[in-house]
Amino acid sequence: MRVAVIQQANTADLEANQHKSEQLVRDAVRQGAELVLLQELHRGLYFCQTEDTHVFDQAETIPGPSTDRFGKLAKELGIVLITSLFEKRAAGLYHNTSVVLEKDGSIAGQYRKMHIPDDPGFYEKFYFTPGDAERVDGESGFTPIDTSVGRLGVLVCWDQWYPEAARLMALAGADMLLYPTAIGWDPADDEDEKQRQLNAWQTIQRAHAVANGLPVLVANRTGFESSPTGDSGIQFWGNSFVAGPQGEVLGQTDVNDDEILVVDIDTARTESVRRIWPYLRDRRIDGYADLTKRYRR
Amino acid sequence: MRVAVIQQANTADLEANQHKSEQLVRDAVRQGAELVLLQELHRGLYFCQTEDTHVFDQAETIPGPSTDRFGKLAKELGIVLITSLFEKRAAGLYHNTSVVLEKDGSIAGQYRKMHIPDDPGFYEKFYFTPGDAERVDGESGFTPIDTSVGRLGVLVCWDQWYPEAARLMALAGADMLLYPTAIGWDPADDEDEKQRQLNAWQTIQRAHAVANGLPVLVANRTGFESSPTGDSGIQFWGNSFVAGPQGEVLGQTDVNDDEILVVDIDTARTESVRRIWPYLRDRRIDGYADLTKRYRR
Repeated sequence: MRVAVIQQANTADLEANQHKSEQLVRDAVRQGAELVLLQELHRGLYFCQTEDTHVFDQAETIPGPSTDRFGKLAKELGIVLITSLFEKRAAGLYHNTSVVLEKDGSIAGQYRKMHIPDDPGFYEKFYFTPGDAERVDGESGFTPIDTSVGRLGVLVCWDQWYPEAARLMALAGADMLLYPTAIGWDPADDEDEKQRQLNAWQTIQRAHAVANGLPVLVANRTGFESSPTGDSGIQFWGNSFVAGPQGEVLGQTDVNDDEILVVDIDTARTESVRRIWPYLRDRRIDGYADLTKRYRR
Repeated sequence: MRVAVIQQANTADLEANQHKSEQLVRDAVRQGAELVLLQELHRGLYFCQTEDTHVFDQAETIPGPSTDRFGKLAKELGIVLITSLFEKRAAGLYHNTSVVLEKDGSIAGQYRKMHIPDDPGFYEKFYFTPGDAERVDGESGFTPIDTSVGRLGVLVCWDQWYPEAARLMALAGADMLLYPTAIGWDPADDEDEKQRQLNAWQTIQRAHAVANGLPVLVANRTGFESSPTGDSGIQFWGNSFVAGPQGEVLGQTDVNDDEILVVDIDTARTESVRRIWPYLRDRRIDGYADLTKRYRR
């Protein structure tokens, strides 16, 4: 199966951003992609650098403008398309949500980001309610989405640091893990620290592939976005990548460019890896109860 | 704090192996190490390439010959020493156990390997009963060991593929994770596969450092050990390493040599990383209950 991840730099012009996304998706499909992953909150700037109530005007419903627009594109191109948007679920209730669109343009499912960060420049707890642990449809918050190209373990950004999230998706039969993300450097950090952060980010996501014997797709934002406070900004670090089921990097973009990464995923190889490294066989579920504790002391 | 990991090739001569371990530990201490980690089952050959009932003669009690010998060494040198041995707990009941020896030569604690592999050439399920999920002293199988140099999250080999084990140690306050291990290549695999396996093994252990904001120490065996069946053997791949709390490799040995890796661990840096990347803050413990299931479907 041929998949693509899209990495792009955004501006404050929402229409221009969406138009660019569409062009990049079309280009990926011309290269044969059946499944395309867009980056986190690809419609606009990463607005969480400050806490600003006006930003809630950008939120949208599901279905809504973004799912309509990208649903039409998925249908026209006959692909499965993973989008990411700022969801208004109800008055005063917002989520950071990934929506999977089917080849017929319908909504295959959605995932509401479960782990929400809050760091200087990434004030997400102000905007996003964490996804429900138990959803109104009775499913878990960590439920993969069934599509015509497989069962997709869609997670979002900060989730990528949590082995628990990846494992729960794998235990529910995910065929691959997909992370739309928006992560970058604080320009004030030195080069060594920047390199450690980038390496850590790639390492832990490759490790989710290893631990679960699954391919992992990661679409990250690129470009510099200055802070609305005038207080520096974020240099999004790109480096979108696809890893195979042993964590091997099958393809990777650069730091700075709008880029399409097209990779072939070999499902027979995934099955083979899960036979030689049968980690699910030996999990000590009788000893894992404390994983649901905040701390064990 | 200065730590050391010891990597060595073994032969069938148990006395010679132990003598070599002692010499390497002495050398590490001369280089300033306060904590020394030995590799898995460092007393002999890796005997799990076949299923042979005579091998049970090599098992020993705790306390017993190995803890006496290495306890004396720990006391003489004034270090904390992590050993690994084939434990006879009772008639017909054996474990793969790591024993931590204190500076005064006493036993600080022990960890019985919880995840037991079984692959061609690694027939460990024949020899080792998995560690108890709940121990007779009421503690969990995943309990770190308190020592004069910190709380040590000691795990063994196959455990290294399980993010659950690392997380449980971190949630119990481990200051670092330590993996005595014995892993190598099947000479029949091609070079690409060998490289993927080695990279996966290092990647997932570096990821435990990242996920938990902790240093990770890994001592692996080196050398080729032929199979008693005459059916090829295992080329242990060395590459023992120490990673810092962002998964950054602080030091690493080569594939082939008996080697001492001495590394300084900066505990202030660990604290700093846990402040900038506060993963424990955001765990969705309300959504993790299914981690104790074998499968979710």
